[in-house]
Amino acid sequence: MTWTRHTRLNTALTGGRPDRPPVWFMRQAGRYLPEYNAVRSGISFLDLCRNPELACEVTRQPVDRFDLDAAIVFSDILVVPEAMGVPVAFESGHGPLLSRPVRTRADVDALIRPDVADALPTIPATLKLFRALRPEVPILGFAGAPFTLLCYMVEGHGSKDWQAAKSLLFSDPTTAQALLDLLADVVGDFLQAQVDAGAAGVQLFDTWAGALSTEDYERWALPAAQRALARVKGAPRIYYTKDTAPFLHLVKQTGADVIGLDWRQDIKRARAELGDTPIQGNMDPLALYAPPADITRRVNAILDAGGGAGHVFNLGHGVLPTTPITGVEAMIAAAKAWQPKASL
Amino acid sequence: MTWTRHTRLNTALTGGRPDRPPVWFMRQAGRYLPEYNAVRSGISFLDLCRNPELACEVTRQPVDRFDLDAAIVFSDILVVPEAMGVPVAFESGHGPLLSRPVRTRADVDALIRPDVADALPTIPATLKLFRALRPEVPILGFAGAPFTLLCYMVEGHGSKDWQAAKSLLFSDPTTAQALLDLLADVVGDFLQAQVDAGAAGVQLFDTWAGALSTEDYERWALPAAQRALARVKGAPRIYYTKDTAPFLHLVKQTGADVIGLDWRQDIKRARAELGDTPIQGNMDPLALYAPPADITRRVNAILDAGGGAGHVFNLGHGVLPTTPITGVEAMIAAAKAWQPKASL
Repeated sequence: MTWTRHTRLNTALTGGRPDRPPVWFMRQAGRYLPEYNAVRSGISFLDLCRNPELACEVTRQPVDRFDLDAAIVFSDILVVPEAMGVPVAFESGHGPLLSRPVRTRADVDALIRPDVADALPTIPATLKLFRALRPEVPILGFAGAPFTLLCYMVEGHGSKDWQAAKSLLFSDPTTAQALLDLLADVVGDFLQAQVDAGAAGVQLFDTWAGALSTEDYERWALPAAQRALARVKGAPRIYYTKDTAPFLHLVKQTGADVIGLDWRQDIKRARAELGDTPIQGNMDPLALYAPPADITRRVNAILDAGGGAGHVFNLGHGVLPTTPITGVEAMIAAAKAWQPKASL
Repeated sequence: MTWTRHTRLNTALTGGRPDRPPVWFMRQAGRYLPEYNAVRSGISFLDLCRNPELACEVTRQPVDRFDLDAAIVFSDILVVPEAMGVPVAFESGHGPLLSRPVRTRADVDALIRPDVADALPTIPATLKLFRALRPEVPILGFAGAPFTLLCYMVEGHGSKDWQAAKSLLFSDPTTAQALLDLLADVVGDFLQAQVDAGAAGVQLFDTWAGALSTEDYERWALPAAQRALARVKGAPRIYYTKDTAPFLHLVKQTGADVIGLDWRQDIKRARAELGDTPIQGNMDPLALYAPPADITRRVNAILDAGGGAGHVFNLGHGVLPTTPITGVEAMIAAAKAWQPKASL
């Protein structure tokens, strides 16, 4: 069998054994790349997210530079709150700012439930452009998970402890649930629209689910992620979280087809919790600052632990803007050169 | 047997079953208390850390207000880098700033190896003052763990990803190891000085150990914490980490007498990894913003899971400055009222 990038990715995402695990990485279209910065020098981040031609261009850049096995559409998880009527701004060096946070039942009731085809056309349009330009490269869609979007919408900005967001869960559970239900439906429809536009898979980012205790993950983030994922048919659904090792058995209950692991987790131990569920991950993005020989050793250790089946190689979190490109090159070369150890 | 606060704490810290688990909490002397803010209005944070009389006063405040089972000496983990010659400042609202970060072998070689009795007299002096003032209340000492101190000393400030600190491990392991070895010895001696001054136990804070992968925790933070703890005799040694659930089996290998758990962890699952090792924790500090009935329910769930033996009740991270005192009161009342369920 001759493996294509499409069959390699799909085989891994569905639990099979391709010639080697496919390689892509979170935020691969980003500020560590000079060609990305060249595009960004002429346009704001949000305008870039809204421009399918330029979004397609930056989506394509790392795929072509590194000959990656998959693209991920360039966008941001906060396009969903914006489509629901919450203004979103990005201040240079300060992360997102949502100037009208959602804190009360009236705030939730005032949110728009968008028709995703009308309100969120950019990602599907970008997917279609990319597929026409690089039909040989599978492209992933994505969205923020309901709990993670709730965090930003309630807090109004990034946070170490998500005091406002978590306080809302505890002090006004009815309002929090209404917001999560609404978000789950919108996010699910948005992911489905991306599958309909030809995404080879979709990733649901629940980055802040790990701010919750085991009890609160089970009560809040898990059912919301389940509800969103249940609306998506026709392509593998990847669910990424961070800091959720204490309740990986619950993460599995989302029903996701593939579980994305953060860099802290030992793959063998995670597999013991997850059973046959395919995994994605999980090299420490900071390890890309290490010498090439150390990077190669780490890549091999991760791929050895994964065993070559049901494993998509990735970082355990997004690549950082100051990452040396030589480190990225060393990682990709090692991942492509990896061979499963012969059975004894 | 009549239980005192001393016997209650020591019994729990050594794995036994007191009348009920003792209660204290991280950062109990802090900005959520008006009486603390009254003291702080006249003195800077670092000057307060350097003043045994006032440090004793703020140490005492929460113990008296809430009738807690233990005090923890008021100080900051960064007094150790300061004693080693690294200037430390606290800018209002911005956390610590170490203006001459340690990045090279020459920087490490230039550090002072302090005689802790001379260079770090405040905590032992505060411990002695407190013991004279409140002999009936056990008081805990503490220090930052070597890896967590390395994070601040290399990075120069707090960080989400500790890029400079982790890069040093990967790019210059010899220098990183020299720094960790030096820190482990200083921290160990500093904890021993606190035991010698009458601390009923000491806590080693390795808050940022959870920034590491399983492999890197085992390579870097674990042996450094082992080395520090091995220098301490004569009182129980508590080891607190955050985000380390993926490698709790390694955390146990520090040799600590008691393992502090962050709020994400389910106590029953943690106990399955830790065996008989006593635990401390682990209520979500954000849950203190919940209604009292919900707080009571959460306290009971944690204490039920702990089972009443080898368990010190605590938060899973420090209390936040905006925490409502009514929430703290509800937590403490519930913890004191808890009774183990009758065996069937």
